[in-house]
Amino acid sequence: MRYCPQCGHAVDMIIPTGDNRVRAVCPHCEHIDYDNPRIITGTIPFYKGQLLLCRRNIEPRFGYWTLPAGFMENQETTSEGALRETLEESGSIAVCKQAFSMISIPHINQVHLFYIAELERDDFHVTEESSEVALFDLDNIPWGELAFSSVSRTLRLFIEDHKNKSYGFHEDTIYVNTTSD
Amino acid sequence: MRYCPQCGHAVDMIIPTGDNRVRAVCPHCEHIDYDNPRIITGTIPFYKGQLLLCRRNIEPRFGYWTLPAGFMENQETTSEGALRETLEESGSIAVCKQAFSMISIPHINQVHLFYIAELERDDFHVTEESSEVALFDLDNIPWGELAFSSVSRTLRLFIEDHKNKSYGFHEDTIYVNTTSD
Repeated sequence: MRYCPQCGHAVDMIIPTGDNRVRAVCPHCEHIDYDNPRIITGTIPFYKGQLLLCRRNIEPRFGYWTLPAGFMENQETTSEGALRETLEESGSIAVCKQAFSMISIPHINQVHLFYIAELERDDFHVTEESSEVALFDLDNIPWGELAFSSVSRTLRLFIEDHKNKSYGFHEDTIYVNTTSD
Repeated sequence: MRYCPQCGHAVDMIIPTGDNRVRAVCPHCEHIDYDNPRIITGTIPFYKGQLLLCRRNIEPRFGYWTLPAGFMENQETTSEGALRETLEESGSIAVCKQAFSMISIPHINQVHLFYIAELERDDFHVTEESSEVALFDLDNIPWGELAFSSVSRTLRLFIEDHKNKSYGFHEDTIYVNTTSD
């Protein structure tokens, strides 16, 4: 941030009084801008023993497979955002069953949240964001072509819990930007 | 937002191409500004059967009791943020045991996240943000003087789970801004 969003004056990057972090502070109108982590919310869409994945038609990671997920928007809940993203990316209507994984990724200021969700029917299609949408057996996940490490970690945890027939809530941290874990 | 944070030009509030929401878009440099929900992260600090609460020395809800919590900052994990806020507000060093509650509050674009945390010792003190810091028995919570509905909801869930000797992960939504629930 270089200019004040409230008055358009150039900002100073300083630690405001009573704070302990550098913020963009406007010397003209005194507005302080706070930049905070963002939530990526999505689903693990489950249908008759198979998982729905989307092949990304957008950057980053164009052409790689992902669980449907995206930035949580204002005025929605975490689960509403997850279902909206699922519809936008896969054309499918799902129902959230439970929050499953919450993964902090501090070096990119994001928290990734995935819900186990059931598809009501095998009704899905290619979208602007996904060049391909398909159901995969749990022993046939395209591990080498997954878009994000939060997705591969979530899928591994899901498959493990599915084998144990008990789904928990999993918290984790990804410190390095890698798609293999 | 009225001015572009990248170039200082006045922004237009329009729906960008390929989007479906109104954003602040700069007609000069084409920067699009995304405003997303923020995470409030905090703890339920537990010590020998008692809970630590802080009396707010800052607005909003000055003078009311709260669990230690605040905005998650960039470059940290959700649990690191919770422990940082606990230290800042109560002077106490805690250890996160598990994520306990995640409460979406869509009308203020926030997600409140609370961890069960154990205090290592009964070492806490008044801080700039808290005029009083004290341990409370579970049957002596100051229900009528709690600062936020996410705090009262989290405390009710915690006490219920404590009685059942099994702590779950609870997801909830607060649709109306009220301190009583």
